[in-house]
Amino acid sequence: MPTNYVRPEIAAMAGYAPGEQPQEEGFIKLNTNENPYPPSPAVVEAIQEVLRRGLQKYPDPMANRFRRAASEVLGVPSDWILCANGSDEILTIVTRAFVGQGQLLRLPYPSYILYATLAQIQGARYQEVFFQPDWTLPKEFGLPTEDLRLVFLANPNSPSGTMVPPDVVRALAERLPCPLLVDEAYVDFASTNCLHLVAENEKIMVSRSFSKSYALAGLRFGYLVAQPHIIHELVKVKDSYNCDALSIAGATAAILDQQWLRETRAKILAVRKRLTEGMRRLGFQCVDSEANFTWNTHPARPVRPMYEELKRRRILVRYMNYPGWGDGLRISVGTEEQIDICLQHLAELTEAPGPR
Amino acid sequence: MPTNYVRPEIAAMAGYAPGEQPQEEGFIKLNTNENPYPPSPAVVEAIQEVLRRGLQKYPDPMANRFRRAASEVLGVPSDWILCANGSDEILTIVTRAFVGQGQLLRLPYPSYILYATLAQIQGARYQEVFFQPDWTLPKEFGLPTEDLRLVFLANPNSPSGTMVPPDVVRALAERLPCPLLVDEAYVDFASTNCLHLVAENEKIMVSRSFSKSYALAGLRFGYLVAQPHIIHELVKVKDSYNCDALSIAGATAAILDQQWLRETRAKILAVRKRLTEGMRRLGFQCVDSEANFTWNTHPARPVRPMYEELKRRRILVRYMNYPGWGDGLRISVGTEEQIDICLQHLAELTEAPGPR
Repeated sequence: MPTNYVRPEIAAMAGYAPGEQPQEEGFIKLNTNENPYPPSPAVVEAIQEVLRRGLQKYPDPMANRFRRAASEVLGVPSDWILCANGSDEILTIVTRAFVGQGQLLRLPYPSYILYATLAQIQGARYQEVFFQPDWTLPKEFGLPTEDLRLVFLANPNSPSGTMVPPDVVRALAERLPCPLLVDEAYVDFASTNCLHLVAENEKIMVSRSFSKSYALAGLRFGYLVAQPHIIHELVKVKDSYNCDALSIAGATAAILDQQWLRETRAKILAVRKRLTEGMRRLGFQCVDSEANFTWNTHPARPVRPMYEELKRRRILVRYMNYPGWGDGLRISVGTEEQIDICLQHLAELTEAPGPR
Repeated sequence: MPTNYVRPEIAAMAGYAPGEQPQEEGFIKLNTNENPYPPSPAVVEAIQEVLRRGLQKYPDPMANRFRRAASEVLGVPSDWILCANGSDEILTIVTRAFVGQGQLLRLPYPSYILYATLAQIQGARYQEVFFQPDWTLPKEFGLPTEDLRLVFLANPNSPSGTMVPPDVVRALAERLPCPLLVDEAYVDFASTNCLHLVAENEKIMVSRSFSKSYALAGLRFGYLVAQPHIIHELVKVKDSYNCDALSIAGATAAILDQQWLRETRAKILAVRKRLTEGMRRLGFQCVDSEANFTWNTHPARPVRPMYEELKRRRILVRYMNYPGWGDGLRISVGTEEQIDICLQHLAELTEAPGPR
């Protein structure tokens, strides 16, 4: 019988299971919150330019071209910005920087499942604080606790698409004894954000992703905004060349094309409304979403068979089951056509007699 | 005075300083062992193909296209292969998987400085075992020690370019109580490698890079070969989407073009010989190298001022100073023209009178 030599915490883990990514064509893919539209044409041009210059040299370890562009767009100094290989890498970096073995992380629940996985890899403990039924956070979430070293907050949250308002986040951070990572992967679809809080309180850090709003999930690029003395420490933890030359160029072009972002956002918000109303008409409970997906539960019918049948029909949505909370379907906002097809199939499935 | 909330191990670290990566043009860059030739044309074609298909979807979390291609080329099953965002990420993943806080890592010295940094980030201890003057390893390197959880061995080594033969590596692993990561970043320039040992001993793992031999430092791609029950555990530690769609396609095309690799390798080996002989003529001690760089010390003159003067003349080589060992110049094998220019300038500097 082979041994595996890994740390006991790793051996005991199941590991994070990312959403299904079928590599063949032909699926309507509404399961991992990708943008259904192609990215800004400026992204492809910028990548072509790097290909012409060549790939044999190492990239800039700090991705300064991106930092300068983001600094202009966001209105924060460039040394407040740390770039990463997707915002998942930002979450990894902050966990490793702030949380030692056996120390405590606090997470909202239900939320992004990766947070607990990162705690497990680090050999840390984590405390899951349940959202209240209206998706607000209980007071407990801001409680100072011994050994608490980091708090994650997805805002907008997944799977709910709901937001904790910036003034509540500010008050939370004031009470907490440790940094608060506000994970704004979906914030470009929301009506507000917490970026301005970073300058007010060194404990508040904001992470962003290019996978959703900028339609660049395939490129892997994300960043963190935090006060510069925090960034200085986090740089020590990242891999030296964590962003490649193509993603740096592509993300720089993407963030400079805010016109593209505004237009794409408007299309997605219109389809999100159509999806929300459609799901409600079918009898689902569907929370108002500030993200590019909706969270749908059903008061009378099991949703898991619907997910399975949709998959057989080559429509992928995300079935999520949170122990102690319940299950539901998280449906990404695709194109109007994709959402209409998904709604038509769900109409058939919800009107069909349930299993005997 | 701001606090920074980071773990004391991180606050105490200086952080790894990667080689200089000037982003402007006009340098003869012989400091970070990049390949002076452009990558296989098939790489650019494969990346173009992904750009046409679009970047809005997540990449395959396991990069299976690459694994299948590498499996054919290397003759190992595809589930023995783990892909990463550069082989630096492989080193990070194995450190996190095998070494808990306070446990022990063993490293050769002098070698790749990042190994010690990875131990520091993990809050682990590390033991540096000095190479003998002839660049062989002392018996101590294979000694079973309590709490020893991982051993790194760069093979070929940097900065020396020397190799520990596979039969010595086999014997080492047999004595060790823990995994041995053979870092083969430079192995495509060597006359032998340790890949065949992976099947013989589950403790032996081999990592490879696309940054040097495949001329893809800008793309960030590397991989590990290990027995599949080890890979299964390491997957839990990596970020879900650690390789982007462009690098997966590019690296797949690169590894399938072995004809390109053979031709490029032959050119680099010819220039390496020219560089080695040239340095020796200038009075340097230059070890025979199995990598794409040479390690040069000087018995009579300080080398740091030479590095500095070369830099003023826009020729970048790597000045390395290993406390307790000594310093030297690591010079990457560039094109014949680049090496001839570098040698000409060094001839001026070594014949000029030293500082008064």
